[in-house]
Amino acid sequence: MDTPQQVITPWEVESSKPEEGIDYEKVIRQFGCQKVTPEMIADNELTHLFFRRGIVFAHRDFNVIIEKIKQGKSIYLYTGRGPSSESMHLGHAVPFMFCRYLQERFNCKIVIQMTDDEKYIWKDIALKDSINYTVENAKDIISFGFDPKKTFIFSNTLYGHTFTETTLTIEKSIMVKDFMKVFGFTDTCKVGQLSFPSRQMSPCFASSFPSLIEKDACCLIPCSIDQDPYFRLARDISHKINSIKPATIYTYFLPALQGTGVKMSASSSVSSIYLNDTPAEIKKKINKHAFSGGRDTLEEHRKHGGDPDVDIAYQYLRFFLEDDDQLKAYEEGYRNGSILSGEMKKACIETLQLFIKDFQARRAAITPEVLQAFFTHKLPSPQ
Amino acid sequence: MDTPQQVITPWEVESSKPEEGIDYEKVIRQFGCQKVTPEMIADNELTHLFFRRGIVFAHRDFNVIIEKIKQGKSIYLYTGRGPSSESMHLGHAVPFMFCRYLQERFNCKIVIQMTDDEKYIWKDIALKDSINYTVENAKDIISFGFDPKKTFIFSNTLYGHTFTETTLTIEKSIMVKDFMKVFGFTDTCKVGQLSFPSRQMSPCFASSFPSLIEKDACCLIPCSIDQDPYFRLARDISHKINSIKPATIYTYFLPALQGTGVKMSASSSVSSIYLNDTPAEIKKKINKHAFSGGRDTLEEHRKHGGDPDVDIAYQYLRFFLEDDDQLKAYEEGYRNGSILSGEMKKACIETLQLFIKDFQARRAAITPEVLQAFFTHKLPSPQ
Repeated sequence: MDTPQQVITPWEVESSKPEEGIDYEKVIRQFGCQKVTPEMIADNELTHLFFRRGIVFAHRDFNVIIEKIKQGKSIYLYTGRGPSSESMHLGHAVPFMFCRYLQERFNCKIVIQMTDDEKYIWKDIALKDSINYTVENAKDIISFGFDPKKTFIFSNTLYGHTFTETTLTIEKSIMVKDFMKVFGFTDTCKVGQLSFPSRQMSPCFASSFPSLIEKDACCLIPCSIDQDPYFRLARDISHKINSIKPATIYTYFLPALQGTGVKMSASSSVSSIYLNDTPAEIKKKINKHAFSGGRDTLEEHRKHGGDPDVDIAYQYLRFFLEDDDQLKAYEEGYRNGSILSGEMKKACIETLQLFIKDFQARRAAITPEVLQAFFTHKLPSPQ
Repeated sequence: MDTPQQVITPWEVESSKPEEGIDYEKVIRQFGCQKVTPEMIADNELTHLFFRRGIVFAHRDFNVIIEKIKQGKSIYLYTGRGPSSESMHLGHAVPFMFCRYLQERFNCKIVIQMTDDEKYIWKDIALKDSINYTVENAKDIISFGFDPKKTFIFSNTLYGHTFTETTLTIEKSIMVKDFMKVFGFTDTCKVGQLSFPSRQMSPCFASSFPSLIEKDACCLIPCSIDQDPYFRLARDISHKINSIKPATIYTYFLPALQGTGVKMSASSSVSSIYLNDTPAEIKKKINKHAFSGGRDTLEEHRKHGGDPDVDIAYQYLRFFLEDDDQLKAYEEGYRNGSILSGEMKKACIETLQLFIKDFQARRAAITPEVLQAFFTHKLPSPQ
């Protein structure tokens, strides 16, 4: 069988059948992680819409974390962001909205790694621009409403040295060929590509943050599934760090405007809605670029109905419309032909405009002092 | 022709013909560096015995450095030490004695990198022990008489982050296969082995030390020839750092007690004389282990004379006996049979005992304050 492979790495996400979207069941089998079950959600009062709608779909040892919490043991969240442009887009927002919920639900600390070193190595940008994106993206992240007393953001370039000991231990524990296999590196990769993953793995271990995180706290990493290779490896070598295996929990990718087979990506501005887009830009992008699951003619649509599973406007409502009844009405109306593509797009536009308006208002209110308070290290002076 | 290869890498030095010693002419051809010429030495009043006796034998662009100095331009020295045990041995002393001379001759600054990260990755030791060796070895280094106002020692583990920007630039400029080729790494190496060389290369560039070294200062690296691969690569990529090519100048290895084909190594205590050895230990090691170039019987020796070229006692005198006339008398007397092996060993023992006694007296006088003053960063508290 010569079917194309579904490719999911930290640097590439591509469905084998773009018209059908990512096959997440296949991802679970391929990566060997566990499913998030309805029982797990109900038993633990995990009420966020990402849980209610199956957007949180897989994990490694999330059940162990739940047990530890029940036993009164300490946990912390760890997630990250590769700052590659001035503004984050809606796809980037998803794991942070999720982290923000988990922080509140579990009343725990979170460390947020800004991998400006990674972006400098992979992209054709200057290091100072990469660090500048760290600062700008941090403002975006803070705007999701993290608890300033329990949230620690750091630049990997400026702060990564504080966990040199953990990074060196990881580098001593892993062979070059292991990274080549897990990340698809070859000997024509840059040295920096091969040396980076140890630094993304370090924060999985509480020993990296002796002054911030309790020594025996267990790490839970909420993120997109494409980051799993780092944490699978971190789990494999945790005994060499004398540490607990980090746990993970994964959300779906937010699809690009073009369709459900591709994740929203910062490398294409027409495929993405940015968190600094204006209401007019949002409207134009959805109307012009959002792939429609509707029929070719009004008559056919009324008669056979549309397909919300591939309709990008509907898919975005799944991620950003809070009201379950309203969402259900959109889905059913679309399937039975009573709701048209244009109406679905209008609902999507209004929901996103409101979401981004509120977001932008919170972002505008961030003073330099508030920003600095979230960082574990002194920020560079604005250039 | 199936002759064994002469192997010289930062982690292995082996002559193809151990009985004849390292073929330094071959090293110069193999590595593509330049010879230190008698004219260069005479014209520039380079009076140290290492210059007088050809122990300083090769360089890359040392003539360029001399030119820059004549033009009144700024230079700095960079050398390093892999701290693998509590005490350095006589072989380690050679490049530092040479650096100390160059610092005085050129009245310039020197940065000394202690690669405790390298030793942690390569050896079966704990990181804290490696850092402890940094501190102990630094005391040895200071005892050679460096100028405290112009000498900056640093632990790579504790201070390497201050030149992260240079290191990242190097990591972005070099492919994995380049390091594999130059250092003989394979994909079964540890990740840390592949990520280390960038950190040894960083101090070649003045940009790594913005608060210590003038921005346009040119770097001169006095060291043993086995370290050349790092600096050859650093020269190749210097344009990517927007920096001047670093220059190098190389000294011979001090041979092991067993013979001129092997360099003195910390991994064998019977092959090395340590800087913390007692007079009795020095005497015993030379008498018992130093390979002799003398004849089998007294009669033969008197008749045919001995061979100072392979006689370890004589070789050590070449490195450590200041008086040229005296050295010449030992050499000639040995060749014509008037000086016996036992007499050569006695001279060597007395010279080394005196050298090490003076060294130990200077080392004992180093207070914690003096030690701290040489470091560019705060030292860890003694454990």
